[in-house]
Amino acid sequence: MQDLKVVLRDDEMPRQWYNIQADMPTPLSPPLNPATGEPIDPEALGAVFPMNLVEQEMAQDRWIDIPEEVLQKLLIWRPSPLQRARGLEQALGTPARIFYKNEGVSPAGSHKPNSAIAQAYYNKQFGIKRLTTETGAGQWGSALSFATQQFGLELKVYMVRVSFEQKPFRKLMMQTWGAQCVPSPTLDTEVGRRVLAEFPDTPGSLGIAISEAIEDAVSSPDTRYSLGSVLNFVCLHQTVIGLEAQKQMEKLNLYPDVVVGCVGGGSNFAGLSFPYVRDRIHGRNVRILAAEPTACPTLTRGPYAYDFGDLAKTTPLLPMHTLGHDFVPAPLHAGGLRYHGMAPLVSRLVKDELIEATAVNQLDSYAAGMLWARTEGFIPAPETTHAIAAAIEEAKKAREEGRERVILLGWSGHGLMDLKGYEAYLKGELTNYEYPQEMIEKSLHALDGYPKL
Amino acid sequence: MQDLKVVLRDDEMPRQWYNIQADMPTPLSPPLNPATGEPIDPEALGAVFPMNLVEQEMAQDRWIDIPEEVLQKLLIWRPSPLQRARGLEQALGTPARIFYKNEGVSPAGSHKPNSAIAQAYYNKQFGIKRLTTETGAGQWGSALSFATQQFGLELKVYMVRVSFEQKPFRKLMMQTWGAQCVPSPTLDTEVGRRVLAEFPDTPGSLGIAISEAIEDAVSSPDTRYSLGSVLNFVCLHQTVIGLEAQKQMEKLNLYPDVVVGCVGGGSNFAGLSFPYVRDRIHGRNVRILAAEPTACPTLTRGPYAYDFGDLAKTTPLLPMHTLGHDFVPAPLHAGGLRYHGMAPLVSRLVKDELIEATAVNQLDSYAAGMLWARTEGFIPAPETTHAIAAAIEEAKKAREEGRERVILLGWSGHGLMDLKGYEAYLKGELTNYEYPQEMIEKSLHALDGYPKL
Repeated sequence: MQDLKVVLRDDEMPRQWYNIQADMPTPLSPPLNPATGEPIDPEALGAVFPMNLVEQEMAQDRWIDIPEEVLQKLLIWRPSPLQRARGLEQALGTPARIFYKNEGVSPAGSHKPNSAIAQAYYNKQFGIKRLTTETGAGQWGSALSFATQQFGLELKVYMVRVSFEQKPFRKLMMQTWGAQCVPSPTLDTEVGRRVLAEFPDTPGSLGIAISEAIEDAVSSPDTRYSLGSVLNFVCLHQTVIGLEAQKQMEKLNLYPDVVVGCVGGGSNFAGLSFPYVRDRIHGRNVRILAAEPTACPTLTRGPYAYDFGDLAKTTPLLPMHTLGHDFVPAPLHAGGLRYHGMAPLVSRLVKDELIEATAVNQLDSYAAGMLWARTEGFIPAPETTHAIAAAIEEAKKAREEGRERVILLGWSGHGLMDLKGYEAYLKGELTNYEYPQEMIEKSLHALDGYPKL
Repeated sequence: MQDLKVVLRDDEMPRQWYNIQADMPTPLSPPLNPATGEPIDPEALGAVFPMNLVEQEMAQDRWIDIPEEVLQKLLIWRPSPLQRARGLEQALGTPARIFYKNEGVSPAGSHKPNSAIAQAYYNKQFGIKRLTTETGAGQWGSALSFATQQFGLELKVYMVRVSFEQKPFRKLMMQTWGAQCVPSPTLDTEVGRRVLAEFPDTPGSLGIAISEAIEDAVSSPDTRYSLGSVLNFVCLHQTVIGLEAQKQMEKLNLYPDVVVGCVGGGSNFAGLSFPYVRDRIHGRNVRILAAEPTACPTLTRGPYAYDFGDLAKTTPLLPMHTLGHDFVPAPLHAGGLRYHGMAPLVSRLVKDELIEATAVNQLDSYAAGMLWARTEGFIPAPETTHAIAAAIEEAKKAREEGRERVILLGWSGHGLMDLKGYEAYLKGELTNYEYPQEMIEKSLHALDGYPKL
């Protein structure tokens, strides 16, 4: 029988995270204090994040031990299966072999709990009693609700009001896991009250929700803020994905020719790909391919520059590919990919040509997701369909070239909470979004006057 | 490290189903033709089911080979993990060890695809091009949509109209997998037209939907009907659950003291428990416990009698525990447990005291489901919460008696598509349902005049 799936035992779970900062040919430029243009003082971040995570953000060690308590929680669903997409291969008539790392098996249905569990643990260790966060589509909010419940922390999730109303099921997941989920803007914060006074009917935005969550966190000594992507330590926590995949591929005596994942803030992609980027840095012949939406073409059309992580300019300036902090992406169903910036680690590796990027439009990604669901069974999240579309392109190229190829695909999550997008696709209601160059250039003016890279 | 999870490799997947008919101390009484009171002629079922499945329904062989094509499809998500519920054990302070067999990992999120895949295969083998079925809450309809898509069959699902309107996401799953899902009653069948002429605003019922699906199937030579529970062959297909669990427990050098599952039509429960019932028949000391809702207390309060499988009296008379074919259970959130009868195999084994039954009320089952979600992470389906509540009772008894015990729990599916029930519970809107004895006796009058057991 052919290998359809490789599972690892609990005792084969990686015991350390991989920190790519130890191997990068070009070190990261430091985050800057926007007021001074100088590197930010780590202590200044201590009001927002616990200092043990701030230290992890700066760490240069190649391997960082996964604490035993974190490991025990990850084992609820990890190691995740590595599966072969043979139904899809047959439908494509490709000689390529497509393997996917199925992160949809977690309680929240995506890769997000990999970092949520670690962040909840480190906050608890630091004596923090309560976390705040924001959520758009709800993936991160629900993952962190699960994680904080596991460690007995309180959580308040500021959910963008329009999503709160349109996606009641995500809110119900958070409540089932004991979190408080409120529609943002709220009357509970200064910034929320200000927005509501001016625009009582606002649908809210991720920018406002972040500002509310940070204001809430910094105004209480035992509360901190939690972020689900972009940061170095979030990418670090996600590397269990790629480390497991390497062990699993090894059991098949295979090594991928190309590693494909979708990118929004970058953490899922970093998690799968960084252990392979390391191999590439050390001379291995492997392509690393990031798939982003054409509606938010951060890597393919945004410059590498210093920019704020949020619309409200509350974060330090981060060195990253960006479309400008006030770029407003189209109302894409892949909510997790609607981010103007990109993890600095991923950005630097793209800049150094260790990672390639490609942009996929919405209709192609849904077509890919539909083909996947009908051949492989599992219904992918709208974000994941971008990686699938890119993998299908690679498989078609292999067919045209008549070459066997091994494709490793990051299957970041299932789409059972996102079926409205599939309905809209089936009804022919979806469109593509491609931005005229002038529009992108206009939003990039927001970078004027800030330090250059 | 303690064992939190046991996974099996693809090559450890069972290659045969277990047919308990070969080991039952009392053979099943035959299904009867209601018109004559005589055992039904198998050929008469050939218009409804393909003859290869009709033969499997009657088979007496202990082991039945799983066809290679079925095996390959089951490997998309099987073998399913056996996991330890240590978070729950700690919350309960019990010396018992609770292991659960996680059937929520399938593409449809429950155990249902185990039989859906097999039924799609056998129909395809028999030259059938199209299937029909009915669905209430949508678990079976979505599982069969996934399975028919895997084998290139067409499918029409008659979904009870009120569910069709209240549960749009289940319908969207079916459509994503390429099935046609229509609100029943429809204008497409004689019975549907008749009902709609008389009651244009009817919410529909499972009875009407079954009648429509069967009428549709028998009126076309290349169409057959498919049923997701109750039948012998459905129970047979589900035995991969228990056979895998036995291998997994063996790797831990453990044997359960008690095996607990929830029962509606009986197939999930049969699947987990029958391999253990076999051990019990052969003298092994193991308790087998079926958990049903107090709102539909088939095993705990219904007699063992001949009754129709459906309200419309289109099926043969089946020997089973029943509340009467026109018993209408309360509008329970655990839609999969709202069935007036019970698989004849499960019923006979209860009658022979090889299986015990217990009834759980709705509030206790949601409280159990909530405790599970907050300790173990995965959110259980409302049906599954009944088994969890019964397992918790067993764990508490172990605590009181100060005895170590090994509890094996059938975790039949996740509740991500059923979060409205959790919302209603959290809002305090749910109630318990217990029927006065007179009411049950009244519905049992429907059995008057039919053959007795």
